Amino acid sequence: MFATRSEYDRGVNTFSPEGRLFQVEYAIEAIKLGSTAVGIRTPAGVVLGVEKRVQSPLLEASSIEKIMEIDSHLACAMSGLTADARTMIDHARVTAQNHAFTYNENIKVESVTQAVCDLALRFGESMDNEEAMMSRPFGVAFLIAGTDELGPQLYHTDPSGTFVRYEAKAIGSGSEAAQAELQDKYHKQMTLAEAQSLTLKVLKQVMEEKLDQHNVQLAQVTPETGFEILSEDKLKEVIEAM
Amino acid sequence: MFATRSEYDRGVNTFSPEGRLFQVEYAIEAIKLGSTAVGIRTPAGVVLGVEKRVQSPLLEASSIEKIMEIDSHLACAMSGLTADARTMIDHARVTAQNHAFTYNENIKVESVTQAVCDLALRFGESMDNEEAMMSRPFGVAFLIAGTDELGPQLYHTDPSGTFVRYEAKAIGSGSEAAQAELQDKYHKQMTLAEAQSLTLKVLKQVMEEKLDQHNVQLAQVTPETGFEILSEDKLKEVIEAM
Amino acid sequence: MFATRSEYDRGVNTFSPEGRLFQVEYAIEAIKLGSTAVGIRTPAGVVLGVEKRVQSPLLEASSIEKIMEIDSHLACAMSGLTADARTMIDHARVTAQNHAFTYNENIKVESVTQAVCDLALRFGESMDNEEAMMSRPFGVAFLIAGTDELGPQLYHTDPSGTFVRYEAKAIGSGSEAAQAELQDKYHKQMTLAEAQSLTLKVLKQVMEEKLDQHNVQLAQVTPETGFEILSEDKLKEVIEAM
Amino acid sequence: MFATRSEYDRGVNTFSPEGRLFQVEYAIEAIKLGSTAVGIRTPAGVVLGVEKRVQSPLLEASSIEKIMEIDSHLACAMSGLTADARTMIDHARVTAQNHAFTYNENIKVESVTQAVCDLALRFGESMDNEEAMMSRPFGVAFLIAGTDELGPQLYHTDPSGTFVRYEAKAIGSGSEAAQAELQDKYHKQMTLAEAQSLTLKVLKQVMEEKLDQHNVQLAQVTPETGFEILSEDKLKEVIEAM
Amino acid sequence: MFATRSEYDRGVNTFSPEGRLFQVEYAIEAIKLGSTAVGIRTPAGVVLGVEKRVQSPLLEASSIEKIMEIDSHLACAMSGLTADARTMIDHARVTAQNHAFTYNENIKVESVTQAVCDLALRFGESMDNEEAMMSRPFGVAFLIAGTDELGPQLYHTDPSGTFVRYEAKAIGSGSEAAQAELQDKYHKQMTLAEAQSLTLKVLKQVMEEKLDQHNVQLAQVTPETGFEILSEDKLKEVIEAM
Amino acid sequence: MFATRSEYDRGVNTFSPEGRLFQVEYAIEAIKLGSTAVGIRTPAGVVLGVEKRVQSPLLEASSIEKIMEIDSHLACAMSGLTADARTMIDHARVTAQNHAFTYNENIKVESVTQAVCDLALRFGESMDNEEAMMSRPFGVAFLIAGTDELGPQLYHTDPSGTFVRYEAKAIGSGSEAAQAELQDKYHKQMTLAEAQSLTLKVLKQVMEEKLDQHNVQLAQVTPETGFEILSEDKLKEVIEAM
Amino acid sequence: MFATRSEYDRGVNTFSPEGRLFQVEYAIEAIKLGSTAVGIRTPAGVVLGVEKRVQSPLLEASSIEKIMEIDSHLACAMSGLTADARTMIDHARVTAQNHAFTYNENIKVESVTQAVCDLALRFGESMDNEEAMMSRPFGVAFLIAGTDELGPQLYHTDPSGTFVRYEAKAIGSGSEAAQAELQDKYHKQMTLAEAQSLTLKVLKQVMEEKLDQHNVQLAQVTPETGFEILSEDKLKEVIEAM
Repeated sequence: MFATRSEYDRGVNTFSPEGRLFQVEYAIEAIKLGSTAVGIRTPAGVVLGVEKRVQSPLLEASSIEKIMEIDSHLACAMSGLTADARTMIDHARVTAQNHAFTYNENIKVESVTQAVCDLALRFGESMDNEEAMMSRPFGVAFLIAGTDELGPQLYHTDPSGTFVRYEAKAIGSGSEAAQAELQDKYHKQMTLAEAQSLTLKVLKQVMEEKLDQHNVQLAQVTPETGFEILSEDKLKEVIEAM
Repeated sequence: MFATRSEYDRGVNTFSPEGRLFQVEYAIEAIKLGSTAVGIRTPAGVVLGVEKRVQSPLLEASSIEKIMEIDSHLACAMSGLTADARTMIDHARVTAQNHAFTYNENIKVESVTQAVCDLALRFGESMDNEEAMMSRPFGVAFLIAGTDELGPQLYHTDPSGTFVRYEAKAIGSGSEAAQAELQDKYHKQMTLAEAQSLTLKVLKQVMEEKLDQHNVQLAQVTPETGFEILSEDKLKEVIEAM
Repeated sequence: MFATRSEYDRGVNTFSPEGRLFQVEYAIEAIKLGSTAVGIRTPAGVVLGVEKRVQSPLLEASSIEKIMEIDSHLACAMSGLTADARTMIDHARVTAQNHAFTYNENIKVESVTQAVCDLALRFGESMDNEEAMMSRPFGVAFLIAGTDELGPQLYHTDPSGTFVRYEAKAIGSGSEAAQAELQDKYHKQMTLAEAQSLTLKVLKQVMEEKLDQHNVQLAQVTPETGFEILSEDKLKEVIEAM
Repeated sequence: MFATRSEYDRGVNTFSPEGRLFQVEYAIEAIKLGSTAVGIRTPAGVVLGVEKRVQSPLLEASSIEKIMEIDSHLACAMSGLTADARTMIDHARVTAQNHAFTYNENIKVESVTQAVCDLALRFGESMDNEEAMMSRPFGVAFLIAGTDELGPQLYHTDPSGTFVRYEAKAIGSGSEAAQAELQDKYHKQMTLAEAQSLTLKVLKQVMEEKLDQHNVQLAQVTPETGFEILSEDKLKEVIEAM
Repeated sequence: MFATRSEYDRGVNTFSPEGRLFQVEYAIEAIKLGSTAVGIRTPAGVVLGVEKRVQSPLLEASSIEKIMEIDSHLACAMSGLTADARTMIDHARVTAQNHAFTYNENIKVESVTQAVCDLALRFGESMDNEEAMMSRPFGVAFLIAGTDELGPQLYHTDPSGTFVRYEAKAIGSGSEAAQAELQDKYHKQMTLAEAQSLTLKVLKQVMEEKLDQHNVQLAQVTPETGFEILSEDKLKEVIEAM
Repeated sequence: MFATRSEYDRGVNTFSPEGRLFQVEYAIEAIKLGSTAVGIRTPAGVVLGVEKRVQSPLLEASSIEKIMEIDSHLACAMSGLTADARTMIDHARVTAQNHAFTYNENIKVESVTQAVCDLALRFGESMDNEEAMMSRPFGVAFLIAGTDELGPQLYHTDPSGTFVRYEAKAIGSGSEAAQAELQDKYHKQMTLAEAQSLTLKVLKQVMEEKLDQHNVQLAQVTPETGFEILSEDKLKEVIEAM
Repeated sequence: MFATRSEYDRGVNTFSPEGRLFQVEYAIEAIKLGSTAVGIRTPAGVVLGVEKRVQSPLLEASSIEKIMEIDSHLACAMSGLTADARTMIDHARVTAQNHAFTYNENIKVESVTQAVCDLALRFGESMDNEEAMMSRPFGVAFLIAGTDELGPQLYHTDPSGTFVRYEAKAIGSGSEAAQAELQDKYHKQMTLAEAQSLTLKVLKQVMEEKLDQHNVQLAQVTPETGFEILSEDKLKEVIEAM
């Protein structure tokens, strides 16, 4: 009756007869090929953890950046296309700094999340714009962690430009198993230490290699100290404590 | 005799031999994949209600925004693509504020509705324009609720840029059953409380999950107090009273 | 010998071997899907009448606008795509007001008609232009009614940008039967009242629903009082008198 | 050996292996669908005549414009797409007026003809230009009549941008039979009255309807009185005298 | 092994696997459909001759321009698409006049030829340029005749933008037979009168109609008198003397 | 179920149903056709070595540039399309010099690497930008060697815009065997001389021709002396010492 | 497994699955259809020689330019599309003169070669640029000969934008046989006279016609006298001496 699915999915920005945008759905698939990332929100702050795929022993794992600072009170973990992520993070950083400069206050977590998603939407546009002109959807998802007057918050964004707040969320190739584990183990009054430990347990479960301080990374955003990445030594302690 | 339907439906802005614009019709289909939203107009104000699809227990339902303020006397409920909705709402907000600033009065409900629809029309254009340049139709429908000197009003817009005033209207995946229910139960002299109750009953009927204060949202626009979203406590009361 | 018809009809602006522009012809088809509109010119003024398709009892019929004012001495009835019509009417209004401002006189009926048709022509252009950039033909036809020093006049425009003056003309899905009826009943010395009555009779004949004051609209443009839409009360009188 | 004809004729501006531009040839076909127009040059002036297709008795034939003034000493008859013609005539008028303003003399007939043809050529261009940006060839042919120091002249233009001077020329759907008749009857020393009569005879022969003062139009350009359209009364006289 | 020829020849500017540009080759074919033109260089000047195709006895042959002046010491004969030729000649004229204005000397024949060929090359470009923006190769060839300090010279240009100097050259539909004849009869010390006579003999041989003073045109460029077109009387003398 | 792979891989910037960007993956293939390059980081500096393909004995091997200076403390070895490399290196040089000029300090190795990768990302964009507008991915990979306050560093970039730090890395047609060899022989405390020797051993193993001072090139970047290419004499010594 | 070759080779700038750019490879084929050119470098200067294809005895061979001056110390021989060559040579000339004007010294041979290759790369770009906007690769190869402080040098460029220095190099349709001959006969200490003689011998071997002073051209660039083309008399001497 209808033309088959494959006839509608190559137009970058075309609806299929059922009202679907296949290129955006395929971009979401790109994220399922990415490394796993986990975020957990606690009353004391948000914990982010990522798997690093170290393809060669000669590769310096510390140069793989999957957790990035946006502002001193804001960070994100990514899964998907690294280079796409960089463009979006740059946009988020500029937005955060413009806000700080104009209003002399930290940007809200939701505001910076929305700025990232507005950019996601704008592929295929023909506007003259200095940043972020893409001819396809961005193939990247983020877990955005931050604190503001509403306390610690964790947002999830995807290539469709949709964002939503989570208490705990996993993205990337291991996300299904990881999310199930989070649902099982998460409780609202976790301490930061418990969250760190749960993050690592969840990653351990979905990673093919044996987890150690080189192939995962842990970070946190707290109201007191803002964003910090755990040093390899600290990380090793947490792993051993686990 | 004619080439078959499927040959005309991928050109974003091409007429078929019967004079149809398939991409716009497919965008309308996108809304049938969306969550259900309901609007009811009463002499005392307009009630908006939406279903929230909470896909994970760790998702914070309060961060799903399906009802959005445009101005203090204007709001809308949406169904379809979230990110598309944001672009259009931003346009509506700017239009409303420009009007207020220029004329020192609230924008009329019909005017803001027309501004949203004018934007709907403009996909595929090659003009240099700072907002809202889309290379496909917007995949979103709105129920726009507001009050002005003509009293409380409820408008419906769709991706074709058509708008029309309704006394009660449902959109989204459950819209057919919901509209039938509204036609059956609506009467012109309803109180706000009756409208709230009817909105919830209609939503309850079309939702797969059991309705509670987390997976629906209720709002109203009245001449006296303008736009307000009912708090979870108030919502729980209404649900229990139902 | 020739490639078949269907191979030439998707290029928006391409001639077929026989010298036809299929996309424009398909846009003309779009109008045959639209609601019926009728216009009758009399020595005392021009009468416009339209069918309103009220798809739901909860829809407020008064919000369906198929007859629109261009200037105090100029109005039009439309059939086809509502949103396309709005763009063209806006263009006509601006043209009329620019004329009035520059020359301190009312724009002529023919001039405003030509302005509308010049716009019709310009789809597919790549000029930087603030209004009316379309990537396909406009899918709308108008009956433009107005008065100037040449007396009351009625023009018909179609998507090809052609315009012509008529004494009485019907457009839309019921246009064939309606035009036959007009040819049969129209005479040059009709009074306004007779024209109103004939307009309703013609509409009644082509409408599926029973005609009442909610699903039709009547308007007139006279040299004395300019453009006015008949109120529901007045309309009811005319219907009953019929 | 070669790909078949149909594979080369949809590219708007592409040569076929034999060196042909099919889209331009198809635009020339569009003129064969148009109404017939005739032009005759005499020592005393140029006569233009056109058939009007009055599709409905309620259509006001006087609003069909197939003969148009360019300047007081210049006019043209057209066949093909009405709206395309309007764009080209506007260009011709502006060119003529610019010339008159700059040099304080009437533009030459050949110069205005060349201006029209230069425009014909420029479809498919991507220059920023306020008028006449077309994405396909113009589907219109003209008979341009005028007088200058070289006396009365008649030019023919077609969609390929070619122009040539004729003593007598017919265009449109009846052009073949009409041209044969002109060749038979034309002589160089005709009077204006004889030319008017011959024009009508030629039109009469190719028109399906009975020729009367409503469905044809006659005009002339003479050195003494410039451009004038014959009134219906005068036209009736000529018809009766025929 | 390779895709067949026909798959590479519709891209306006694409190489085939063998390194050929088919659209340019097809444009060269367009010239083989054109009227024949002949040029002969003598020590005393260059003679140009063209066939005119007079399709109707009512066509005024004098309005067919196949030989055109570029500057007082420069002219050209063309074959192919008339309207394309006009654009290129205009470019040549402006180039010649700019040179004369800037350096107060006549432009060289080779320089003006190169200017024409540089334009030939630039189709398909997207630069903002007031003249000569073509989306396909120009379908025209020229014989450019002129004199400068190097004496009388004759150049040939084709759609590929290649130019080369000839002693005698024929282009257009009869070019093969004509060139053979030229090769046979030409000698370096011809007088102008002998060149005129040979030009006509060559044209006579390839024309379908009987050659007379109306359907051919003869011109010459000499160091003494520059460019001149032979009057019909003078032409008749030459024909009779032949 | 899905359309086959080949249907998604020609759109320059389109996701396949599995979320892959084939044109970027094919650009990565282009590098596997390139000559082999090797980089080794030691505490004393970074060594770069490349194979030169000398296709003819008459070709002057010294004119093949596969190792290029970016700044006095920064260089890179390339594999893939030479001309693409030049564009990216130019961008890197300008970035490095702008940094030096603005901040009066050497640019960091990571910063210049990121600048190269940001450029990689931007193909297919329609921004007005003076450098580096590509309509396809860049078909080149780099080993970027430099020193800054973090000591000697070696980065690898690929056409997807991804970059990562390595202790030792091989790219190009022999990269698989070369990387295995590096993994086997590399240790963190190598001297520069050991690194030079290892680089040559690795290249020797993957080259078809016998390695000599003409068909390989060796360079190093050290904190003390910055970038230098080893002279043929020095290179000969190292080869003989090997 | 893969789509066949022919499916990837028409996109002007698209990678095939194996990482190849077919349109550039096809442009390289265009050069194999061109006339043969030979360059030989000696300590005393560089000799360039080209075959001229004189298709008609009436064609003036001296107007075929296959060797062109860039600056007084720089020249090039070309093979491939003549008109493409002109665009690139113009760019090289402007680059050379800008350098001379800005730095008051001759541009280096490598610098001018790189300028030509940078242009080769930029087809398909959408930048606003006054020169050299091509929508396909340039179909031309050059042998660039020049002298600077590094002595006489000979560079070879191809459509991929790659350039390399040679001691002796042949391009065009006879390049394979010619290069083999060069490899056999060339030695580093040749005199200019020996190089001239060898150039002619190589051309003689690959030309279909008998070589004489009209169908070949010889030029040289020496540090003492710069660029000069050998006169026909001098050329005849060399041929006879051969």
